[in-house]
Amino acid sequence: MASVAENPPPAAKSPATVEDKPAGEGSAESSESKGASKKQAKKEAMKAEKLRRKQEEASAAAAAAASKETEADPLAGNYGDVPMEELQSKAISGRIWTEVGLLDSKLANGTVLIRGVAQTIRGVGKKMAFLVVRQFTATVQCVLTTDELVSTQMVKYATSLSRESIMDVEGVVTIPTEPIKGTTQQVEIQVRKLYCINRAVPNLPINIEDAARSEEEIKEAEKTGEKLVRVNQDTRLNNRVLDLRTPANQAIFRLQCSVEDIFRDFLRSEDFVGIHTPKLIAGASEGGASVFKLDYKGQPACLAQSPQLYKQMVICAGFGRVFEVGPVFRAEDSYTHRHLCEFVGLDVEMEIKEHYFEVLDIVDRLFVTMFDYLNDKCKKLLDAINRQFPFKPLKYLRKTLRLTFEEGVKMLKEAGVEVDPFGDLNTEAERTLGRLVLEKYETEFYVLHRYPLAVRPFYTMPCPDNPLYSNSFDVFIRGEKTFLFMCIVLM
Amino acid sequence: MASVAENPPPAAKSPATVEDKPAGEGSAESSESKGASKKQAKKEAMKAEKLRRKQEEASAAAAAAASKETEADPLAGNYGDVPMEELQSKAISGRIWTEVGLLDSKLANGTVLIRGVAQTIRGVGKKMAFLVVRQFTATVQCVLTTDELVSTQMVKYATSLSRESIMDVEGVVTIPTEPIKGTTQQVEIQVRKLYCINRAVPNLPINIEDAARSEEEIKEAEKTGEKLVRVNQDTRLNNRVLDLRTPANQAIFRLQCSVEDIFRDFLRSEDFVGIHTPKLIAGASEGGASVFKLDYKGQPACLAQSPQLYKQMVICAGFGRVFEVGPVFRAEDSYTHRHLCEFVGLDVEMEIKEHYFEVLDIVDRLFVTMFDYLNDKCKKLLDAINRQFPFKPLKYLRKTLRLTFEEGVKMLKEAGVEVDPFGDLNTEAERTLGRLVLEKYETEFYVLHRYPLAVRPFYTMPCPDNPLYSNSFDVFIRGEKTFLFMCIVLM
Repeated sequence: MASVAENPPPAAKSPATVEDKPAGEGSAESSESKGASKKQAKKEAMKAEKLRRKQEEASAAAAAAASKETEADPLAGNYGDVPMEELQSKAISGRIWTEVGLLDSKLANGTVLIRGVAQTIRGVGKKMAFLVVRQFTATVQCVLTTDELVSTQMVKYATSLSRESIMDVEGVVTIPTEPIKGTTQQVEIQVRKLYCINRAVPNLPINIEDAARSEEEIKEAEKTGEKLVRVNQDTRLNNRVLDLRTPANQAIFRLQCSVEDIFRDFLRSEDFVGIHTPKLIAGASEGGASVFKLDYKGQPACLAQSPQLYKQMVICAGFGRVFEVGPVFRAEDSYTHRHLCEFVGLDVEMEIKEHYFEVLDIVDRLFVTMFDYLNDKCKKLLDAINRQFPFKPLKYLRKTLRLTFEEGVKMLKEAGVEVDPFGDLNTEAERTLGRLVLEKYETEFYVLHRYPLAVRPFYTMPCPDNPLYSNSFDVFIRGEKTFLFMCIVLM
Repeated sequence: MASVAENPPPAAKSPATVEDKPAGEGSAESSESKGASKKQAKKEAMKAEKLRRKQEEASAAAAAAASKETEADPLAGNYGDVPMEELQSKAISGRIWTEVGLLDSKLANGTVLIRGVAQTIRGVGKKMAFLVVRQFTATVQCVLTTDELVSTQMVKYATSLSRESIMDVEGVVTIPTEPIKGTTQQVEIQVRKLYCINRAVPNLPINIEDAARSEEEIKEAEKTGEKLVRVNQDTRLNNRVLDLRTPANQAIFRLQCSVEDIFRDFLRSEDFVGIHTPKLIAGASEGGASVFKLDYKGQPACLAQSPQLYKQMVICAGFGRVFEVGPVFRAEDSYTHRHLCEFVGLDVEMEIKEHYFEVLDIVDRLFVTMFDYLNDKCKKLLDAINRQFPFKPLKYLRKTLRLTFEEGVKMLKEAGVEVDPFGDLNTEAERTLGRLVLEKYETEFYVLHRYPLAVRPFYTMPCPDNPLYSNSFDVFIRGEKTFLFMCIVLM
C-alpha cells in the first residue's frame, strides 16, 4: 500500500490558478452579455447545443478509448464505466455505501465504498492520481498508486474522467501524517476499485471550485497578482444545478430546513397546531398591498398575500395557537433589498389570556432556541457557508431585550436623529436604532413594542394606559424588521 | 359543596331534541335555498345584518339587566362580564389556566381555572345550573349550586349566557359517582367564579352540538320518531368558524399536523432535506395537465402543478434525498372525488444507488411508521373524528405487500375482470384489485409496481429484464391511488 508520505499535498494547489482554469470558464464570461435579441439568443442556443453534442461525442470517445485500453489489463474488472443496464434496478447487491461526511479516523485500515462526484482529478506521472470526491457538503481525497491491485491503465482511466462525474470508489481508509487542507474529511482513501456511474460532459459552464470561492479569496489573490476565476451571478442562475453543488449552497438549504425543524418542534412543544391555508383566494388578504390576479374558471381570484385572515379564523374557531409554513405572494413593485414576490413565510398566530407579553415570551424563546440550535448543532453547515460568505456570529441575549417605541424614539433623539414620536420608523431610523441598541445593550436581536396606534392596522388593540400607543410589536435582527406579530383577543 | 348525587345527569339529555332546538336552526335550513338572484341575496344580507344588530342589542340588554341584578349581590365580584379595558393587556396576573383536556381525577378537590366556550347552558330551577365548557376537542361539565359562595343571582347570570360565549371558570374539581356521558372529561367543576370574556350573539346559525352529530345518530333517532337537527354542507361552509369548532374538525386539523410531523421526522431521520420550491413559474410543470395562468408583471406565468422538476434539479445538484410539503395547483376540470384544484402535497424525491426497491423500502417504513403513530399516539383525535364520521381501523401489514402489475392483472383476470395487460388500470379496476388484495393478503395498504412502460412518463426507466415494464410503482390505500413515486438514477 502506498504510504502517506509519498503523496504530495495536493491541497496546497487547490485554488484553481489561471493555468488550471477549465475550458468552460470562457463561456461563463461570455454569457454575461445582456440585451441579446431573440435571434442572437437562438443562435447562442444552437451554438450551445452544438457544443453539447461535441462534448458528448468527446466523452463517448474517451470512454471507448479507455475501455479499449483496459482490454489488455487483467485488473480491468476493478474500474471502468458502469453500463446503463447495470443501473436499471437489475439486482440488489447488498453493498453498503459510507457517507463521505462520516469518513473519519475510526474507519482507518477498513475498506469503504463511497458514491459521490469527482470534484477534482489530477494525475502525477503515469503511476499516481488524486481524486477529490464530494458528497453533499463533504469532500475526501482518494489516491491511486500503481501496485499489485492498481494498474497503470487504472490510473490512466482515473485521469480520463471529467469533473463532476458520478463515481463509486472502493478503497482502504488511511490517515495522512499532515492535515489535509483541500478537503473536509481528514482521512484519505487508497483506491482499490473505481467505477463511473455517469460521466459529466468534459467542459462544464461552471467549475464547482470556482463557484465555491469567496469574493474575499479572489481579492486576496489579486493582491499577489494571481487571477482566480470569478463566477458571475447570471452564470450561476443559468446553471443552477451546478451552482447548487457548492458547499455553501448545500449548507444554506440544509440550514433552512433545520430552521423549519426548530420552528415546528418548538411551537409543537408549546401546543401550536400547524395548518395550511388556501393560497388561491377570492379577494386580497390585505388592503394596501397589490396582488397577483388570475382567472379561476371564469371567476376572478388572487394569490394569498398572507395567511392572516385564515389564521384569525381558526383562532376564532378555538384552535388556540397555530402556525403555518408556506408560500406568500406579494405583487408590489418594490426595490428594497427585503422585497421578494414569492417567499416562504413562517407564520404564527395565538390567542392570549390577558397580555401580549404572552406572545413576546413565545417569540423570545422561539428565537433564542433557534439561535442556540444553529450555533450548537449546525456548526459544520455554518462553517461551509462562512467559507464562501464570511459572517460574524449573531449577538443575542439569553433574555431578549424589549424596548418600547417611546424608549426607541428617545435613544434616536439622544443620538441626534429626529423622528415623529407617533409616526413609523423608516428603514434608516430602524438601522440606526439597531446600532444604538447594539452599543448600549450588546445585542443584535431585540423587540420593539408599544408602537403608535396610528401606524398599525385597524384591528390592533390600543394600550390600556394610553390610547395613542398599541399592543403591538416588531422584532429586529441586525436592524432589520424580521417578524411582525399581532395580538388578538379571543372573540 | 353540592354533592354529586344531587346533580341530575344532564348527559342523558345531551343530544338536542326538537323541543330543545336553537332559534337559529331555522335559518340553517332556509340558507339552503339555491339559485337566489343577486337582489334576493342583497335582501337576505340586509335581513341578516338587521338580525345581527337586533341580537347584539338583545345581548347588550341581557348583560345590562344582569349587571343591574348583581348590584344588590354581596357576591357580585365572583361573576360577570369582563369589561373591555381588562382585556387590553392591562396587567399580568400570574394566574394559571388549566387545559380542559388535562382535567382528571388527579386534580380532585383542587381549585382550577379554565378558559373555554360555553357549549351548553342549562338551568334547573333557580338554584342550579350546568355549563358544558369546551376547549379544543375536550369538554367538561361545570356545576353551579347555590351555597354561601354561589348566589341565586350568580346562577341566573350563568343561565343568561349565550352558547359559544368565551368563559373563565374557576372552581373545585370533583369526581361524579357515575360516568359522565356528555363530556370528554370524567370530572366536574363546582363553580366558584364565572366570568364572561366575550358574549356570543344569542342565536348562532349553527349549534355546535348539532354540527358535531353523525349522520348515523340522526338516522337512529329518526327511527324512534325523534327529529334531530341536521346541519347541511353549505350552512357549514357559510359559517366555517363555527363548524370548525366541532370536535371532529378540531381533531382533523390536529391529525393533519401530526401526519406532517411524522412525515418530516421520519424523512429527516433518513437524511432527507426539506425544501420549498417556487410556485410561481414560467411554464407548466407537467405536459398534459392544464394550469392556472397569471400575469407576472407583464410576463406570462403559471402556478406550479408539481414540484417535480425542481425536485429533480436538486437531486441532480447532489442533495441526495429531498421532500417538500406545500401547495399544488391543478386547473383541470375534473369531476372525480379525488380532484382538488389546490391541495397540500407531501412530496418526496430520492436518488437510488442500484434498485428502485430502495425507494419502496422508504415508502414502506414511512407509511407503517405513520399508521402506527396515529394508532398509538392519536387515539383521542381518531375517537373524536370517529364520533362524527364513523370508520374502521386500516388493515396493514408490518412489511408492506409488493405486488407486480403482472400479478395484479392476473388476480383481476381470475376474478373475471379483463384488463389490458399493458394498459393502465381504471379507477374501477383499481378498487376491485383493492378488494381482491384485502381478501387474499388481509391488507388495505399495498404497493403495485413494474407498471407497463407505455403508460408511464418519458423519464421512467424500463425494467432490465423486460422493456415492456418499467421501474415504477403506485401506492394504494383502500383501493385508491395515494402516492406516486418515480425513481431517477443519479445523472
